[in-house]
Amino acid sequence: MPEFRKDPVTGRWVIIAAERAKRPQIYRSNGARGDPGSCPFCPGNEAMTPPEVLAYRNHETAIDAPGWSVRVVPNKYPALVAEGRWIGQNTGLYESMQGLGSHEVIIETPDHIVNMATLDEAQIAEVLRAYSQRMLALREDARWRSILVYKNQGAAAGATLEHIHSQLIALPAVPQEIVGEVEGAKGHFAATQRCIYCEIIAQEKNDKRRIVAEHERFIAFCPFASRFPYETWIFPKAHESSFEEASAPELSDLARALKEILSRLDLGLKTPPFNYILHTNPRDGARNSYHWHMEIMPKLTQVAGFEWGSGCTINPLAPEDAASVLREVAI
Amino acid sequence: MPEFRKDPVTGRWVIIAAERAKRPQIYRSNGARGDPGSCPFCPGNEAMTPPEVLAYRNHETAIDAPGWSVRVVPNKYPALVAEGRWIGQNTGLYESMQGLGSHEVIIETPDHIVNMATLDEAQIAEVLRAYSQRMLALREDARWRSILVYKNQGAAAGATLEHIHSQLIALPAVPQEIVGEVEGAKGHFAATQRCIYCEIIAQEKNDKRRIVAEHERFIAFCPFASRFPYETWIFPKAHESSFEEASAPELSDLARALKEILSRLDLGLKTPPFNYILHTNPRDGARNSYHWHMEIMPKLTQVAGFEWGSGCTINPLAPEDAASVLREVAI
Repeated sequence: MPEFRKDPVTGRWVIIAAERAKRPQIYRSNGARGDPGSCPFCPGNEAMTPPEVLAYRNHETAIDAPGWSVRVVPNKYPALVAEGRWIGQNTGLYESMQGLGSHEVIIETPDHIVNMATLDEAQIAEVLRAYSQRMLALREDARWRSILVYKNQGAAAGATLEHIHSQLIALPAVPQEIVGEVEGAKGHFAATQRCIYCEIIAQEKNDKRRIVAEHERFIAFCPFASRFPYETWIFPKAHESSFEEASAPELSDLARALKEILSRLDLGLKTPPFNYILHTNPRDGARNSYHWHMEIMPKLTQVAGFEWGSGCTINPLAPEDAASVLREVAI
Repeated sequence: MPEFRKDPVTGRWVIIAAERAKRPQIYRSNGARGDPGSCPFCPGNEAMTPPEVLAYRNHETAIDAPGWSVRVVPNKYPALVAEGRWIGQNTGLYESMQGLGSHEVIIETPDHIVNMATLDEAQIAEVLRAYSQRMLALREDARWRSILVYKNQGAAAGATLEHIHSQLIALPAVPQEIVGEVEGAKGHFAATQRCIYCEIIAQEKNDKRRIVAEHERFIAFCPFASRFPYETWIFPKAHESSFEEASAPELSDLARALKEILSRLDLGLKTPPFNYILHTNPRDGARNSYHWHMEIMPKLTQVAGFEWGSGCTINPLAPEDAASVLREVAI
């Protein structure tokens, strides 16, 4: 069973999940493509995954059989498992908790596609709809305080299977990164009665140098304090705290914005490995001060000793220059 | 000029350092070795680096010429520069500071060696002596509040030059990771009048399962909340707050312990890329509660979307199992 463990000095939590070590490595060390015939995410291989928890299907196709366009399954090698209660244990100075959580995989297309930038907008919108539907379902379970949806594309970004997919982890606590955002936003709201993210969007629109793209309902920019070269964030322009409550027209517009950003990164940086993370208001967050968004991070630099020792990243590319490069990519 | 920038919501700092993008990439993408003839860290090529700030030399050899055993130079592509005062700037919601700091490179041997595990103990002790000597010199400059010494070995660990070297960055503020340690240790001391690290060492000695090696003055173990497989920490067994004040016999014993750990990792894991970081008491830290140590982290897993989104790492190997494997390596 996985477990959460806490560093007794800093309070930093880690997840010890031995099950994860059993994952097959489809990516070859030489970067060559794997064999799609053995891909557990391809149609016909549904039995290679745990039974689906959601699928968008053609009429009259059976569950766990071909005929789906997006399919969501429990992770076969989960970092956390949704069994039992959240029980802690203390041994001397050390504190641990059972590794409670829910870990799912969103298979984004039945085709053995390895690059999300090549999906069409309608399919991306379906993927976003699946995120939302699963998040709303998991919100009904009072054990989950926070839900994280993220994507790893490319071996250097942490993917072990190349067929494009995202992951969702529902957590029994709010992780440190989200706590930092929620508390910062709450503090600003208490002082000013304003959403700090709405103010950031206004400042970026006024400044223009870091804007990458703007759509009807969404805006994308390289953040002022970018940790990585070409890091790009997408925000709804209206104040909305929770991704999972987005309407169908909003998801369609987000799909357009996401497709544009992924295409600019793909063409401008020659299909870089990347991660993206959906940041949404946790249970017990703050609807008036938190503003959901996506953070997209190409993986072009290595996290090294300085970063681990300090908690501060060194970014060799100013976001103003990154945004300028991305705006000029012909798509 | 590099600059510090602060995320307006979370308060997280980053360093934007465009100069770093000019670094030559000696590592080839196919993993092949570079050409030592063009290595700026090899004897005869001293003019390829900025002038040395410290070198251990044979008698009658000239500065910035061959004849040294360890050589310390300013980083040619610095993340921070030691010029001027620490001036902040505010633009709307955004805060930045001039990128003040001192960034040095410790060249660990004149030989074009690419693996620190193959250095002999006496040479490792000389490298540690150079760390200490530069840290003591930089402590005299009141601008530096914290000094970080770290090492990246292997391209996947962030090294751009293969000839083995470490780096030192003196900072005008205490970075978040060290603040977390100092504050945690101070809190424990206030409550118990004891150093939490001394207590951790006692608990590890009693438990034994996570111990990797023990020497006269040092102990090495895989920490209870290890972030990464085979992460190993080395502590002085006696309470000491500051690495840079270690005596020559202590540095010799640390060299023995470090050589043993690096050899176990090297043989057990087939020369993995790795980082290590020296954690020492910052200026205005706490001598009675902080306990210096080294954290060694093989780079075997990728940091992926979950880690960036949550701040929590998923480690697929329990430290009890990692320590058992490392103890059994025949060295």
